[in-house]
This record gives sequence, structure tokens and C-alpha cells, in this order.
Amino acid sequence: MKFFFEPRGIAVVGATTSKEKGGNIIVSNLKKGYTGPVYPVNPRYEEIEGFACYPSVADVPDPVDLAIVFVGAHMVPQVIETCAKRGIPGVMIQSAGFSEIGTQGKALQQEAKQIADRTGIRLWGPNCMGLVDAKRRFVFSTVTTSIWETGLPLGNVSLIAQSGMLAGAFLIDLMSHGTMGISKVCSIGNKMDVDENDLLAYLIDDPDTNAIGLYLESFTDCRRFMALSRGTTKPIVILNGGKTTSGASAALSHTASLSANGVIVSGAMAQAGIIQARGFYQLTDYSKTLALYPEISPKRRNRLAVLTYTGAAGIVSADIMDGHDLVLSKLNSTTLDELKTVFPEWMPPSNPVDMWPGIILNGSKKAYQKAMEAVCADPGVDAVFTHCFAGGFSLEIDFEMMAQMAKKAGKPLICWISGERERVHEFQLSAQSLGIPVFREIMRAVECIGILLNRPLVNEVNDPSGKAEEISRTTADGRFDILESGDGQLDECLSKQVLAGCGIPIVEEKQVASLDEALQIANTFGFPLVAKGILPGVAHKTESNLVHLGIVSEDGLKLAIENLQQTMQGRGSILIQKQIQGKIELVAGFVRDPQLGPCIMCGLGGIFAEAINDTAFALAPLTMNDALNMISRLKCQLVLDGYRGLDPVDKNALAHILVSLGNLGCAYSGIQEIDINPLIIDKGQPIAVDALVVLFNEQPDSNS
Amino acid sequence: MKFFFEPRGIAVVGATTSKEKGGNIIVSNLKKGYTGPVYPVNPRYEEIEGFACYPSVADVPDPVDLAIVFVGAHMVPQVIETCAKRGIPGVMIQSAGFSEIGTQGKALQQEAKQIADRTGIRLWGPNCMGLVDAKRRFVFSTVTTSIWETGLPLGNVSLIAQSGMLAGAFLIDLMSHGTMGISKVCSIGNKMDVDENDLLAYLIDDPDTNAIGLYLESFTDCRRFMALSRGTTKPIVILNGGKTTSGASAALSHTASLSANGVIVSGAMAQAGIIQARGFYQLTDYSKTLALYPEISPKRRNRLAVLTYTGAAGIVSADIMDGHDLVLSKLNSTTLDELKTVFPEWMPPSNPVDMWPGIILNGSKKAYQKAMEAVCADPGVDAVFTHCFAGGFSLEIDFEMMAQMAKKAGKPLICWISGERERVHEFQLSAQSLGIPVFREIMRAVECIGILLNRPLVNEVNDPSGKAEEISRTTADGRFDILESGDGQLDECLSKQVLAGCGIPIVEEKQVASLDEALQIANTFGFPLVAKGILPGVAHKTESNLVHLGIVSEDGLKLAIENLQQTMQGRGSILIQKQIQGKIELVAGFVRDPQLGPCIMCGLGGIFAEAINDTAFALAPLTMNDALNMISRLKCQLVLDGYRGLDPVDKNALAHILVSLGNLGCAYSGIQEIDINPLIIDKGQPIAVDALVVLFNEQPDSNS
Repeated sequence: MKFFFEPRGIAVVGATTSKEKGGNIIVSNLKKGYTGPVYPVNPRYEEIEGFACYPSVADVPDPVDLAIVFVGAHMVPQVIETCAKRGIPGVMIQSAGFSEIGTQGKALQQEAKQIADRTGIRLWGPNCMGLVDAKRRFVFSTVTTSIWETGLPLGNVSLIAQSGMLAGAFLIDLMSHGTMGISKVCSIGNKMDVDENDLLAYLIDDPDTNAIGLYLESFTDCRRFMALSRGTTKPIVILNGGKTTSGASAALSHTASLSANGVIVSGAMAQAGIIQARGFYQLTDYSKTLALYPEISPKRRNRLAVLTYTGAAGIVSADIMDGHDLVLSKLNSTTLDELKTVFPEWMPPSNPVDMWPGIILNGSKKAYQKAMEAVCADPGVDAVFTHCFAGGFSLEIDFEMMAQMAKKAGKPLICWISGERERVHEFQLSAQSLGIPVFREIMRAVECIGILLNRPLVNEVNDPSGKAEEISRTTADGRFDILESGDGQLDECLSKQVLAGCGIPIVEEKQVASLDEALQIANTFGFPLVAKGILPGVAHKTESNLVHLGIVSEDGLKLAIENLQQTMQGRGSILIQKQIQGKIELVAGFVRDPQLGPCIMCGLGGIFAEAINDTAFALAPLTMNDALNMISRLKCQLVLDGYRGLDPVDKNALAHILVSLGNLGCAYSGIQEIDINPLIIDKGQPIAVDALVVLFNEQPDSNS
Repeated sequence: MKFFFEPRGIAVVGATTSKEKGGNIIVSNLKKGYTGPVYPVNPRYEEIEGFACYPSVADVPDPVDLAIVFVGAHMVPQVIETCAKRGIPGVMIQSAGFSEIGTQGKALQQEAKQIADRTGIRLWGPNCMGLVDAKRRFVFSTVTTSIWETGLPLGNVSLIAQSGMLAGAFLIDLMSHGTMGISKVCSIGNKMDVDENDLLAYLIDDPDTNAIGLYLESFTDCRRFMALSRGTTKPIVILNGGKTTSGASAALSHTASLSANGVIVSGAMAQAGIIQARGFYQLTDYSKTLALYPEISPKRRNRLAVLTYTGAAGIVSADIMDGHDLVLSKLNSTTLDELKTVFPEWMPPSNPVDMWPGIILNGSKKAYQKAMEAVCADPGVDAVFTHCFAGGFSLEIDFEMMAQMAKKAGKPLICWISGERERVHEFQLSAQSLGIPVFREIMRAVECIGILLNRPLVNEVNDPSGKAEEISRTTADGRFDILESGDGQLDECLSKQVLAGCGIPIVEEKQVASLDEALQIANTFGFPLVAKGILPGVAHKTESNLVHLGIVSEDGLKLAIENLQQTMQGRGSILIQKQIQGKIELVAGFVRDPQLGPCIMCGLGGIFAEAINDTAFALAPLTMNDALNMISRLKCQLVLDGYRGLDPVDKNALAHILVSLGNLGCAYSGIQEIDINPLIIDKGQPIAVDALVVLFNEQPDSNS
């Protein structure tokens, strides 16, 4: 990919002398920073913006690694062909008019892709805003703004955007507001060849990139995306547009791409340790914070010292921290004693440290310096959140010194700034140059600190082997044969036999042919019992009067069996189960997503399953870590951890079930869906009480 | 209060010629806008900032309605005394050094308050930043900023702040960034006399105020605050600092005030229709939006048309809307036909309306105008969210025309702006002058639209009578006598008898003295049954082996009773209940909060009660509307509404229970707490299965 990022020479196909046209802006932008030779290509001109112009890309002299193309869509395939012949390795197509405009454009895009497949030339775009490299001052883009001249705010965040807006309008906004330092911005457009994964791989290895932010409306290959993310400690933040139903319908009409199922994608991102944002500024704010403090901590650390010049902001910070898994550091006595030296006697210092009385007494510079020293030395402080004011009254703080102290102590310093507009802007730029993330809103600042301190630890998401654990199962007894031969849905007994074969604990149960046999089983199992009618093709047994719960006597059993026999009228069979008394009902399942492949779900069951919607998803196969992380993402942790005298749920056992489900689904491609519902917790142990395995139908289902 | 807001003359006690000192800044600030006479008071000077200076406030000529005091705290009581004698109705004490600094300051504050109580003079502050009136250009404040000269952004939001920061640093930030138009800003400091309720009452009647935003760390009288809010349709937004545990501990050290219990306060605010914010900018952004569109809709309306120049922003808007109870309007065929006239053929218009192809074809001005016309005319559109860009490339939109169209159609128009810094700032100011709320972040914009369109309807929160419904109960049978005489906790039977006396449905149950009696009851009730042992002072019966559930036969009943008799060893009594089979367990309760008084809770029960924490609070007495609103605030609506074939919960019956609980608690001040747990839903009807009434102890509890 280096020929895209550091080309030795660039041909601009479709260059023109008409100002304000894309073909001219590209050349003008190159002139502002690009240092290699520029070759405008257009048979109508001799010279463009001071560069000699060539009639065809075939005529361009060496060196040339990249052709930036801005001509009518219908001419693009021909240009690519010529570039390939000329031996140019990369073409960046900024023209629009391809798959995003319907049938005709799709055909053009296919034609172009075929040339690439045949010749090996790499295509970036089409319908994109190209590439900006703030460090090298390379602007390969049709975007015109005075910012290119005044200079880009240099930083270590690189962006990959499946929308021209982020590489155009929003980038201009970011740059002119000095919001974030930028390394590279890549607009990938229709990504017909070069896609997010190619760029992600490049940026992961890029020494000028500390964190990568992506706006994507679709994944070319979500699993490769995850693997790349899991293979690096570089923070990756994603805004996945079209995750909700309404967003997805908008996505469909906007691009020629399909949005993958939002909840599954969200689970997959969490599984790979990728941070998820919901808004554009949230994306860049998260990325900025992580780029400035990219190291992953070896352990959880979420204790904050807050230095504020206003008690109200301290209180509000603490309130907001509550929702982001952050706590106030309990300052130790040495720290408190140090603080006392700059505080009036009537004000015992505490955290948040309300500096105002100290400022009045000693001036803001001394007060902040002393406080910063003290909290940096306190081992109970993991990060420092400081509030600054720029303008009007005199809050003079040596912010450079504070930044140095924080760096020396190895503790992230994050700043909230407010004040007069120009002074605030200056402060933002200066803090940025000091490597300190600064925010205009306390809420966003706290949110970013939460993302920073609570991001997954390396060993939680990274999979050093690059592969999931070996798929293992006990197949000796042939219970799995049905998965190869059968189709449609397996009945409850067969489904559970398959699960049992994978080592998933299932409820004690037995199919019986007669009342006598049932009574015999009752002797073995003991009451209470459940009697179920198993009828082929009937998945919802309760609704079909095929479930009798709470059988506590032989009479009750007899009644239940008579009842079932009557309902089934000679068809099906009867299943006797030990009734499990657990108070916690979970669900676990497998689903083969058309785009993402094998996926695992677990969640809260019973009537709350969907109503409260406490579920977690991940892509199979799972490592034990993946499975344990999924479980830790459920909201009902208090219930799982042994609430109100209940046994705590054996999370390892639960994780094993999820891993096994995934392994099973991965081993048998004929499985469409598996549902364990309920998965009841009995004395802390999860037990599959009902289950359903659904195979892909070869023929249309006669029952439906 | 008018003498504070529109004084005919002002004395500044503690005025000085030393620049940068508060006593000088107050006078200088008055000079910039205040039109009445200004009388500096200081025996050491003849003249200050061009005004004649007086040795004492006693010497000041008429007219003088207000004394602004900025002298050492120890001198303040004497100044107040003199002001009272001079007949000045209002004193605004901006000096610090009162209750916020401990014992000595508290004594001074008490002394001052006593003078006010005795003389009737009204005191504002101390420890405050006074008052700013942007319309009149009155600045009664020690804050120095160039903004007073360049002009305040005039608007219809008034703020009340229990923190100088909001009337100082943050106000400067708001003003210089042009974020929000301001009417009045009141800094209430220690609010020893004039409090948030006095100011709220004034601002509710103020024609220059359309919406009121408050930052409070404590309530002087939460119930009066609620009553004021319920008596007006003017939008009120609150940021309640110290709501969480950590925030509250910060609040304690910051001000001399106690934070009321966060969850109850939050419930009380919702009950009164008060919008709650969590951050400073969120507070002002909500207030701004509501001030520009203050009318309350007579019905829910949450359908949005999104006009965007970038598909990505449309998609992201739709995704975010999903979390704020907003939906995309389904545009009707007329609208779509109108849109088609400015769109290329290959792009069928949909919502979000991605304007870009239309912009390319017809220019941004025409495209936006046409689109705005079309969506304004569409009855399926309740509000319009438009995305604008300022700077660089040419997105020229006649925003004034769009604002007019929106006003004419009576549909709120909300705008997201990004672009080059200066151009964005100009756009913000101009949009503000057009009365259009404009935001820099899509997330915040959507959040504010959600607040605007989903705010409670008038009839949901306003209580036209100003009073709750009459407290009613059936007391004829004397079951309530125990509430007057008893203390400590009532046993389960007594507790439920009291509840039954208020019309709360309780489970069928009977106390029995013998097995025979129990068997007789079994005949009447039918199986399954529950047998409980009632022992005085034992609240947790299950843990004490005093509960036998699921008794399904006479043998079982016999066994249970023998068992209970053995456990209780001749003490207590036995209670036989019909076992209720409902799948939904709720809890309901009453608690007398030390600050807020009688409060009602309802929530999800069972093991999920606290683990998932789905509860709602409100202050008693409740109207039926209050109770129904509480229920609607629970997250488990899907479960309540008849999920998966369950009967929907009779919300009116549930609301009646909550109202009755409140009435009971209000009628008997000896009740400390009532707990109905579980409140089981049986065929849609809530039934109290277990209950506990706790009375205040006169003597220490001998059991504890």
C-alpha cells in the first residue's frame, strides 16, 4: 500500500485549468505539500498550475506510483487499463457515478474491478475524497479549504472513512477548530478493491499512527477486521453507521452496501476490544484520547483525582463518573497533608479538590502546582482530571509544567476547558501540542476518561494464537449423524442429545413409552417432575398444551400422561424430566448470520429475556476469554454473582457451554440455529432444560 | 422581588477605587448598562468611577431599592442593619466567608438571617455572583470580562445557579461562544433568605423568560419547587449536583447544604415534569431548545424529517434517534414527488433526505428550499432536523427562509452545523437571532430534539387543583388503630389488614390455630397453598424457615404445619394463604424521607428488584396521573403490557395501590415505611402477597 501513501510521483488524470473544479483542486492541493513530481494528464492543456501537462497517462515520465483519477465515470475503466499498462501500481478514483447510482454505475464498477483482478493494479475508491497525510502535508483530495494553507493540526490519530463527509466537511471542522491532531485521513468511498482492512493493516504498522478511528457503513470482511484488531494493542475506535433498524434503512439508500445485523456487530466489536462510538465527535474524541495515551494497562485502574476551581464542576464530574465506571481516588494522608499547605484552615481538602480557597490564598499557579504534585505522587490516583479556565479573571496555570508532572508520573492528565472563545481556542491548541486531551464539556471528558481507563486489557481480547481453541466433541456414539443427514428442526430430545454430546449439561430426562415406564423413572428421578409431549414439528410446546410442570405425585404423573396421550392422539412420544428449581433462567444460542457466519448469544431468560433485553453476542468459535467477556457484558451481573443468598453462577461452566455451542456450530455447517431456552441455574450450575437445533432445509418445510 | 431585578437606585457597599477588586468591578459593571443612579458607599473615598461616594448607606439619597454588599463577612450584619433602617428593601451580599467556611461563618450567617426575619428586609446570597439581566444590560456582579462590552447574546433562557461558576466562568464561556441567548442569570450562593423558589416564582411570571434552567446542590423546599413547576407550562430544566453517592459527598464539602436522596429527587422531578440534565452544557442546550419552542404539544409527536448534505450524517442521526424515542417520518407520496423534482432520477428520495445529489443538480439553495417546503407541508412530519455546513465548499442555504417556513408550518427546526471556525460562529449567532437552535454535535442535537418532542404533556404532570386527590380510606373496622398506638414493625397479617383497609387487594389468607382449622381453610381456598409462621419481630420469614410454599395436598399441609409448630415452639401463629401463580413480581412501597417527606416507590420485584434496578419514585400524596406516570417510567413496559401471552397488567389497579399507599402514609405520620413485596400480578391484577408496615419507634427496638 506504500505507493498510495508515499508515491514517488503522481499523475492526475482529469486535471484542468478551471479553478474550483475537482481536477484543478487536486493539482493545487498537491502543490501545497506534496514534494514529489506531479503530472497533470489532459490532452487539452499544455500546463496546469505550473506543471507540464501530458495528453495521456501513458506519456507521463518516471517516477509515477499513483494515478489520481477525476474523470467522468464512463471513462474510468479505460484510464485504469492504461495505468495498468503503464505499470502504475495504484489508482485512486475520486470520480463518482458508480455503484452508488444504480445499475449502470454498478456495471462500470464491476468492469473496473475486473481490470484490477486481471492486472493486479490496486484501486482506491471510487466515489471518495482520497487521502490526507498531515505530517507529510500530502493532500490527495478535491476538498478546497483555507486550512491546507494555515496548516493541519498534526497528531497521531488516523481515520478511515466510508463517507466523503468525514474526509471533507467534518475534517475541515476538526482542523479549523483545532479539536484533534491528525496523522492520516483515508476516504474509502465504494471500496471496490482497497477496503478498510487493507488500510487498517497499513495503519497498524504506521509509526505515525497511535490510534485509528473508523466510520464504516459496512464491513468487507468483519472477521478479518476483528483479527487485525486483536493482533495489535493500537486502540481502534469505530462508528458503525446504520446499526439500528432505521439507521440501516438509511444506509441502504445511501451506499451500495448492506449493514450487518447491529447487535451482532456490536458484540463482535466488543469481542475484539474495539471501542464503539455513536457520534462523529465522539469518534474523534475517543480516538484523540486513546492516541495520546495508547498504552494498555496491565490491570484495571479507574481512580480519579479531580482538580477543579469550582466546587460545582467537581460535584458534577463525580456524578457523571458514576455512570462511567470511574471512582474518586481516596487521597492518602501524605497527599492531604501536602494539599493542606496551600489550603486555608477552614477547608479540609478532599477529592474532588476544590482549588478555589487555595487559589484565593496562594494564587492559581502555586495552588495547581502543589495539588498536581501531590496527586501525582499518590499511588491511589490513576489519572488526573483538571478543570481550567481561560480568559476574564486570572486563572493562571502552568499547564506545561502540569503536563510534564503527569508524564513523569505516568498518569493520564485530562482537561476540561471553558472561558472566552479566543483564549479557549489558544488553550486547546497549546494543550494539544503538549499531548493533553482537552474537552469543552465535562460529560465528554469523563466519558473519554472512562473509555481510556476501562478499555479492555490486552489479555482479555487479544488472541495470541490468532485462532480459537481446537474444536472438540465426543462423537463416538454417533449422536451427531443426524446433523449431517437431517434437515428442518430436531425435536427437544434429539437436540439435547446433540448438546450433551458436546459436553453441555442437560437436565435428567428420559423418553417413555408407557405409564409404567414413567412411574419407574419417577422412582429414579424423584418428584417434582415435568412431563412433555414431543410431537414432530411442534416447537412451542407450552402453547400446544404439551407441557405439564410441577408433578409431585404418582397420581399427578398419571393424570399428566393421560392428558398428553389424549392431546397427541397416538403420535409423538412422552418425555419425563426432573424439574429444576433454579430461580435464574438464562438463554444461550447459536445463529449463523448470513454476513458474519457463526454467532453465539447468551442472555437473561424467562419473561425478561426480550423485555429487558439483556443479551450479549460474539462470533464463533469462541475462546474461553471470549465467552467470559460475553458473560461480563450482561447487565445482570449482580444476579449472576450470587445475589440475595443465591449461589453465584459458575461462569466458567457457563462459558464452556458457549464455547461448545460455537464449536458445534462451526463444525456442522448444516446447523442454522441452536436455542437453549431455558438454561436454568441450579445451585450455581447452568443446565439446559429445553433446547432446539434447527438445520437448514433442503426442501421447503411442509409444516410451514 | 422586583427591587432586586429592577431597582430604582443601587448602593454599592464596599465600593473601592482599586481596579480588579470586587468592590470596583461591581461599580464598573453597573456603569456599563444600569440606567438608574449608582451610589458607591465607602468612607475612604469621595468618588468612585465617576459616581459620588457616600460614607455610609444611611447617607445615600433616594431612590435606592437595592444594596449590593462586598465587604468583609464580619461587617455584613452591621451593613444589613443599616440598610434595614434606611428602608432599603433588598440586599445582595456578594461577600464570601459565611456558612461555607464552617462554624464562625455559620454564626455570621445566622446573625444576618435574624436581622432579615426581624426587619423584613430580603437578603440575596451571601457568597454569590449576583444577577445579570441581558435584556436590560444590568450586571450586578464582581465578574470582569470583555463580554459585558461586546454585548450579551440576548435570548429567553433564564438561569438560577447555586454556584458562582455558572454565573461567572461558565456564563463567560456561554456568552463568548454565542452558544445560547440569555435573559437573566441569578447566582443564589448560600441562599440564606432568597432561594430558588423565590426566583423561580419570579421568573415564571417574567415575560422575558421562556425557559428556566437551574443548577442546584440542594432544595430549600422541594415540594414548593415542584408545585411551582406544576403550576406553569414554562419549561424548567434542572441539573441537580450531588445526586450520586460520590457526587453527594463532594457536595457536602462544597456547600453547606445536604443533598437529598438522588433517586427520590429524580422521581420527584419527573413527577413535576421537570427536565433533568447531567452536565452544564446539557443544561443550557436543553434550556435553549425549550426556550425557542416553549409550547407544549397536546399530544405526542416524535416524527422527524432529516435534511442532510451527507448520507453518513443522515444514517448516524437515525441511529441516535433510536435511543431518544424519535422516529423518521414516513414521507407521503406528495412529499416524495416534490422532492423528486430536485433529485436526479437514479436517486429515489427517502428520509433521511440525502440532499447531495439534489445539490449537485440544482445547487444547495434551491435543493434545501424545495425539500424544506415539501417536509413542512407533510402532515407526517413533526419537526425538521437539518444539517448545514459553513465554509470551504459552497453550501449556500437561505437559512432565514427556512426558519420562516418552519415557523409558518409550526414545526420546530433544529440544526447541526459544522465547518470552518469563524463561519460556524457566524452561523451560530445568526441562527440564534432567527430563533433556531443550532448544535455542533449531532448527538446533542438529537438529544435536544428528544427532550423537546417527548417532554411530558401538560395534563400528565400539571395538577390543576394544586392538590392531590382527597385522602380516602375505610376505617370503620378500626384496623387503623394500631397505627396510632403501636410502634416498631407490624407483622405480616396486621400489615396486610391495614392495606386491605385502604382498598389494596391482598391475597386470600387466614390465621389458623389448629391443623383442623387449616384443613377447613384448605377446603375453602383450594390448593396450592402457602403456610407461614408469624413470629413477632421476624421480618425475614424465608431465612427463618417460616415459609412453606407449594402445598398441594392435605398431607403436605399437615407436614408444613407440624414443621412450623416445631420451629416456633409455641410462639406466634400460623397463616394459610392461597398461593398466587403469577409470573410477574412487582414491589411497591412507602418511605418517609427525612427531607422530602412521604415518598412512593414501585418497581420490578423478585431477584431482579435491585439487580436490574427498575424502580420509580414519586412524592406522596399522588394523583392517579402521578401514579400512572410512575408506572410508565419503569423500564419493563414490555412485560407490563402483556408480554408473550401474559395478561397485560391492569395499570389502573396498580396506580390505585400506589395512590392508596401514599394516602395512608400521609394520613398517619407514625408510619416510617411500608413494603409490599411481592406484589404479584395474577391474571393482570396486582395482589399484595407479603407486606410490612414499619412504625417509628418511640423506644429503642429491643429486637435489634
